[in-house]
Amino acid sequence: MNRSPLSRRNFLKAAGVTGAGLTVGACRNASAVPAEATRAAAPPTPTREPKPTEVAMADHNAMATPAESAAAAPAAQTETAWEEMDRMHEEGVKIFLDGIDPTNGFWGTPLEYTEENGVKIFELTCQEIDWEVEPGKPVAAMAYNGIVPGPEIRVTEGDTVRVIVHNEMNQSTSIHWHGVIVPNNQDGVPYITQPPIKPGETYTYEFTTRNSGSHMYHSHHNALEQVSKGLIGAFIIEPADKSNEPEVSGDYTLVLNDVGIGLTLNGKSFPYTQPIIAKLNDTIRIRYMNEGIQIHPMHLHGLEQLVIFKDGWPVPQPYYCDTLNVAPGERYDVLVKCHTPGAWAFHCHILSHAESAHGMFGIVTAVVVQE
Amino acid sequence: MNRSPLSRRNFLKAAGVTGAGLTVGACRNASAVPAEATRAAAPPTPTREPKPTEVAMADHNAMATPAESAAAAPAAQTETAWEEMDRMHEEGVKIFLDGIDPTNGFWGTPLEYTEENGVKIFELTCQEIDWEVEPGKPVAAMAYNGIVPGPEIRVTEGDTVRVIVHNEMNQSTSIHWHGVIVPNNQDGVPYITQPPIKPGETYTYEFTTRNSGSHMYHSHHNALEQVSKGLIGAFIIEPADKSNEPEVSGDYTLVLNDVGIGLTLNGKSFPYTQPIIAKLNDTIRIRYMNEGIQIHPMHLHGLEQLVIFKDGWPVPQPYYCDTLNVAPGERYDVLVKCHTPGAWAFHCHILSHAESAHGMFGIVTAVVVQE
Amino acid sequence: MNRSPLSRRNFLKAAGVTGAGLTVGACRNASAVPAEATRAAAPPTPTREPKPTEVAMADHNAMATPAESAAAAPAAQTETAWEEMDRMHEEGVKIFLDGIDPTNGFWGTPLEYTEENGVKIFELTCQEIDWEVEPGKPVAAMAYNGIVPGPEIRVTEGDTVRVIVHNEMNQSTSIHWHGVIVPNNQDGVPYITQPPIKPGETYTYEFTTRNSGSHMYHSHHNALEQVSKGLIGAFIIEPADKSNEPEVSGDYTLVLNDVGIGLTLNGKSFPYTQPIIAKLNDTIRIRYMNEGIQIHPMHLHGLEQLVIFKDGWPVPQPYYCDTLNVAPGERYDVLVKCHTPGAWAFHCHILSHAESAHGMFGIVTAVVVQE
Repeated sequence: MNRSPLSRRNFLKAAGVTGAGLTVGACRNASAVPAEATRAAAPPTPTREPKPTEVAMADHNAMATPAESAAAAPAAQTETAWEEMDRMHEEGVKIFLDGIDPTNGFWGTPLEYTEENGVKIFELTCQEIDWEVEPGKPVAAMAYNGIVPGPEIRVTEGDTVRVIVHNEMNQSTSIHWHGVIVPNNQDGVPYITQPPIKPGETYTYEFTTRNSGSHMYHSHHNALEQVSKGLIGAFIIEPADKSNEPEVSGDYTLVLNDVGIGLTLNGKSFPYTQPIIAKLNDTIRIRYMNEGIQIHPMHLHGLEQLVIFKDGWPVPQPYYCDTLNVAPGERYDVLVKCHTPGAWAFHCHILSHAESAHGMFGIVTAVVVQE
Repeated sequence: MNRSPLSRRNFLKAAGVTGAGLTVGACRNASAVPAEATRAAAPPTPTREPKPTEVAMADHNAMATPAESAAAAPAAQTETAWEEMDRMHEEGVKIFLDGIDPTNGFWGTPLEYTEENGVKIFELTCQEIDWEVEPGKPVAAMAYNGIVPGPEIRVTEGDTVRVIVHNEMNQSTSIHWHGVIVPNNQDGVPYITQPPIKPGETYTYEFTTRNSGSHMYHSHHNALEQVSKGLIGAFIIEPADKSNEPEVSGDYTLVLNDVGIGLTLNGKSFPYTQPIIAKLNDTIRIRYMNEGIQIHPMHLHGLEQLVIFKDGWPVPQPYYCDTLNVAPGERYDVLVKCHTPGAWAFHCHILSHAESAHGMFGIVTAVVVQE
Repeated sequence: MNRSPLSRRNFLKAAGVTGAGLTVGACRNASAVPAEATRAAAPPTPTREPKPTEVAMADHNAMATPAESAAAAPAAQTETAWEEMDRMHEEGVKIFLDGIDPTNGFWGTPLEYTEENGVKIFELTCQEIDWEVEPGKPVAAMAYNGIVPGPEIRVTEGDTVRVIVHNEMNQSTSIHWHGVIVPNNQDGVPYITQPPIKPGETYTYEFTTRNSGSHMYHSHHNALEQVSKGLIGAFIIEPADKSNEPEVSGDYTLVLNDVGIGLTLNGKSFPYTQPIIAKLNDTIRIRYMNEGIQIHPMHLHGLEQLVIFKDGWPVPQPYYCDTLNVAPGERYDVLVKCHTPGAWAFHCHILSHAESAHGMFGIVTAVVVQE
């Protein structure tokens, strides 16, 4: 992964480079709001400004119909309704833009390991924790090493990997290496390939990696609860022979989830997701991993996606799309050539997973292409 | 698009050409109902004939179990139950067949434009309207130029397009050109690439088209409501070089939707959808566009589909199927060779999107191949 | 299909071959439960051992959160909760393993036919029955010839097929030959291509098969109820020229269903589904058929799937995956090279279709590779 630091100033330059660009706050682009706007806007009735967290915590899945409810209200009230809706939309985008911090470890800093006789040794601790899908609003979660998703494990094809799992939860667990070819007794299915790892126990997996690709690790015990609440992570095996690997300036893993901790992208809900930052004409790689129980057709604005791998296997012939349907358990690797500058919305196109009357939320982020 | 007029007589000839064919009404095909039908049918208990609109407005999503409820009833009542079910099924099909009118503008008459200094200028007006998913039953909708979906915009790769948007609704809006490569400030995401278009305002988009294909335009503000209620339309960019375009006798766009105005195909629910009419051995092109929030696996009876484009991009190698799963935000172009005459059912294969105990409804139509 | 008999002893040898292997019952693998398990497990509070049927009949779709409910309980109760959960998980796996009987007709014994003047004649009788998705727990179903799914019909491309349908149900029906190219009047859509087959009637379909592949037959009348309750079956047309057919040691059809009789694989819910038994280095063929109304992304552990056909049509270039998303109405044929011995879990990766706090259920089975 090769990411250049991005100052706040540079980010805004990138996002706003194309003209109207970002209109954070109440500013308006004169040409974008022409004079023929004929309807006199009533001055907004004073209403309490909703705080960001209030907005974000609202029931995003309920399909509000402000226009309908407003229809029965007096005119001034009607104005208030849509203006409040707009303000909530704007507030979310502001939080998103203000929260950009490319120096944090959001984008899959791989888990550190020790090495012993050529074996790479990782440690994972399972805990029941409170996880902030958004700041200040903890939800009951289950985590590897205290984060959701768990830390990315990244090794090279042929590596022998040992993973020591500590179960500090109040229920048993196990880990399945989803997509990774392993001996049967390392496959992680309680009562079929191993006993469950009971509360307080430690269990060790060990296998030599054979198939490169974007894989996952996750619980395979009481999995509807444990996976949906966060016992998930990326397990990436880089090929031993990298001559066929695409050259990219950034490599981003997007772990998608839905029930349990809610609609999230790498454990966070918009506006608390982090954007992907790239330079003009960069090619970036995105690895989708669906750990949820619903499909997530991922739509990137403005920049086409070239699908190169499915479930870690190369597709026979790469193909282009702008919306890629990722089903539970699937992974896809795509390349994106950043040929046009600006801030490109990037979200699940099941609209109830991405926007409510209170603004965008859930599985939404952006690819920001700096000039 | 090249469609020949179809008289009622010719349609029936086409549909009934293969033998048993269409059995509209109560007629029976003797060979199809053999003598070994041994169970004496009790004369139907007189029941009120449900009117078409009553049938169609019933709660299609509720899974009725007439057999079960009938089980507790006396025999004559039981007969009534299934006979009434059959009558409702038949009624829907009759309405569908009677409603065929190939001269109406259902199939995507492109929006007219003016031209100024080489720029094609389109106008779209957003309004909250009542929309008849079926005749006489208006639902609350949001429309471009008064129709759902909005008018098809069809241009040629390289065209510069200006779209003037008038917002006559009681809430702000914006338009995203889904799949179309545009400069960032024309991308239609409020507070990221433009301010929202407020009630009463007019806003102008302008861009030069670069990538041909079957694209879409739709709201990107409060989109769960606005898109599901109808602020959607096809945006088709024909390639500048048409030498690789397939030769077809008809080109049909199917915009799919689900929540909001309900399960619809081009804004209508069966039996008020319109069939595709083709001649024997014609090749037709179908462009699927999913503007809903659910998948719609589209199944065509009797005629295979050759997938040639996904999201406007050519697939590396076309492939055949009979059921094509279209996810929200996706578009697919397929070719259908009409090699066998008759009326071929064509529907979403999520059965709750296509049929209830009251008969077929929702995302259902037919391809009628005339000999 | 070519399956060798498998004794109980041989099965366990196969499943346990790789080391820790199967740990049926309470046995533990010493190396798998290391000494560093530091938390003293409280002795389990005596609780009533749930009977297998109780476990299996629990509401699997409700997402239980035993950890949460346990949090409010005293410590001993908490231990009881997870131990009971584990016991239920184990119980299901035991039932699955004990139930293996490769001599039964689970895997699609084709329907017998008579032959008359070169026509293959099949008979199907539609009945409302009680069907045991699991032993002792009948659900209201609709069946062809008394089983769900109905018997597999397997013919060869070019065969002329006559199917005589007897409707012994309390409602009308019809049969659509999903994916099979037929004359329009044999397509099975009431009031469009035929009258419905009324209660007590017999109806005859006849057509010459033209397109080989993994197809289906199912009701096309009141289909949401009739299909979801079981009027479904595989219709497999083997190619006349078998020179391009893959050589396989086993050929398994997996009919998936969800609403109606519930989440099932060939009409059964785990642990009452049957595993696929193969020998090391065998190549097997799996034909997925989704007759439900939800997607089922099928994940096979440890062994990659090579997709070779979609809807009976060869894919232009076979591709590998470990999770294959099968949408309603779709069929896929895949090849699996059994390169690693052991019992490999094989399930829908929508976790709510495969596991609850009470253990695995629904669309779950295993591929058991014997050394």
